[in-house]
Amino acid sequence: MIAALAGGVGAARFLAGLVRVVPPDDVTAIVNTADDDEFVGLYVSPDIDSVTYTLAGASDAVQGWGRAGESFRTLDALGRFGEPTWFRLGDLDLATHLARTRRLHAGEALSAVTAQLAASWGIATRIVPMSDDPVRTRLTVTGADGQLLELAMQEWFVRERCEPPVQGVHFAGAAAARPAPGVLEALDAADTICICPSNPVISIGPILAVPGIRRALEERRERVVAISPIIGGKPVKGPADRLMRGLGIDVSAVGVASEYASVCGTLVIDALDAHLAPAVEALGVRCVVTDTLMRSPEVAADLARRTLAAVA
Amino acid sequence: MIAALAGGVGAARFLAGLVRVVPPDDVTAIVNTADDDEFVGLYVSPDIDSVTYTLAGASDAVQGWGRAGESFRTLDALGRFGEPTWFRLGDLDLATHLARTRRLHAGEALSAVTAQLAASWGIATRIVPMSDDPVRTRLTVTGADGQLLELAMQEWFVRERCEPPVQGVHFAGAAAARPAPGVLEALDAADTICICPSNPVISIGPILAVPGIRRALEERRERVVAISPIIGGKPVKGPADRLMRGLGIDVSAVGVASEYASVCGTLVIDALDAHLAPAVEALGVRCVVTDTLMRSPEVAADLARRTLAAVA
Repeated sequence: MIAALAGGVGAARFLAGLVRVVPPDDVTAIVNTADDDEFVGLYVSPDIDSVTYTLAGASDAVQGWGRAGESFRTLDALGRFGEPTWFRLGDLDLATHLARTRRLHAGEALSAVTAQLAASWGIATRIVPMSDDPVRTRLTVTGADGQLLELAMQEWFVRERCEPPVQGVHFAGAAAARPAPGVLEALDAADTICICPSNPVISIGPILAVPGIRRALEERRERVVAISPIIGGKPVKGPADRLMRGLGIDVSAVGVASEYASVCGTLVIDALDAHLAPAVEALGVRCVVTDTLMRSPEVAADLARRTLAAVA
Repeated sequence: MIAALAGGVGAARFLAGLVRVVPPDDVTAIVNTADDDEFVGLYVSPDIDSVTYTLAGASDAVQGWGRAGESFRTLDALGRFGEPTWFRLGDLDLATHLARTRRLHAGEALSAVTAQLAASWGIATRIVPMSDDPVRTRLTVTGADGQLLELAMQEWFVRERCEPPVQGVHFAGAAAARPAPGVLEALDAADTICICPSNPVISIGPILAVPGIRRALEERRERVVAISPIIGGKPVKGPADRLMRGLGIDVSAVGVASEYASVCGTLVIDALDAHLAPAVEALGVRCVVTDTLMRSPEVAADLARRTLAAVA
């Protein structure tokens, strides 16, 4: 059995590789929900949707998020009514948000709705939100006038295009959140716990901030293997560099290792970063070097195989 | 000043003609909301939308309801998730329902939201729901097994295609509903009150069932003129015949006159029904005969002109 801590696109691609090398129903993905937000009254869960659409084979291969063959007719029509349209909700994607929101309002838990939607796609892998309780990433940034202000993750990432410098991050609600049903059980039962190649600060950070999850990894540290999302000093995708730098974390596989050292016995880094292996191991983290840039599902499957072998 | 009691498509076409012959901002449309319902968690107001889209020049000219150039990508995608898709919510139409639902959930009144949406379209005519309080048409029908059951309007009209025979109609919530802000004021201030060519039972019936509205018309009966929606024993559109027959009302201009006799001094009927004029007048309702089939906006404008002249 495998448990995987997952953020968005990078995690989704890794998981799609993983389920090519192990039976899909041996895998439980524990997914970040701290980027969840509400738009035009709809509950949007970007990381759960990236994982779900990718495992369903329905994701947009070019941009990595959202659905293949997407259109934006409803969103464009919303502009007339003065509703914000900076968060690009597609017509196909809206169906997910409508179905999810209706069920949440009817009193169902996010974990139950997530499982139903995954089942609708015929996905055998268990996709579980880190928590059914609301946890929200809040970024303290420097505004245009030099004053500090607080933004929700999507406001900073999408609306402000990651431009305001980040001074701090906190996960509102984390202290009171409980792991969703099945999360601790999956971590306990796992032969291997993967930390997918996701943003360590705002994708994996919130998962570890849910009480009980960090300790579950610490107790099984030798079974935990992470894949560095930083290659050659840059994230493959997304704003990890801006966030890590803003928080004083080295934007490198070494910085990732320092973030994960207490929960993770092994780090997989890219061949391009082979020279950093001694620095990673100096932090007490075993280092495995391989090709980590997931150009295709085949490469992702190779990476998954190497990752599992690293802690076998 | 003109106040108009309005249902859906027939009313919308009449109003589009009316605003060609009088200044649009002299007109207040008081619209039926008893067909409103919730689909996938969205508040849908079919008659308000038909009137709004038509006055905006954005309605689908062929089917009469919904928006021109509509598509159904979100709805089709909802089918995968097991959500009901029999109510055909289009992608453009969804923008209206999303904006409205978000604002209603934020605590705004339906009348305020309706005014905002109309303003977004640049509509000068006032579009006012009959009430901000929920009134819902409930039909008692004979089910397939011969047993009586109760259906919401859209369930009977769209999902069941008007097939189950109707035994009775009631307007749940009507007794406790208050006219929306501006309704009684518009009826008071109007030189002419039009009852648009709408279904007398389930479009005009609920408006008259809101306490205070029927009396306002009774008190000004000589200023009230209705247009028969029945031509040659058939409704131009919609299920008025099935409903009228089920309730023992003659499916004719005479039947319409008998329904409206207490609130309406004048009835406009089609030239095809000229032979019914004596029977209409026998009910104490003055009868005007003209062409009432609104084949084009020009014909609708002629009809509006004749209607206003009838009580001038």
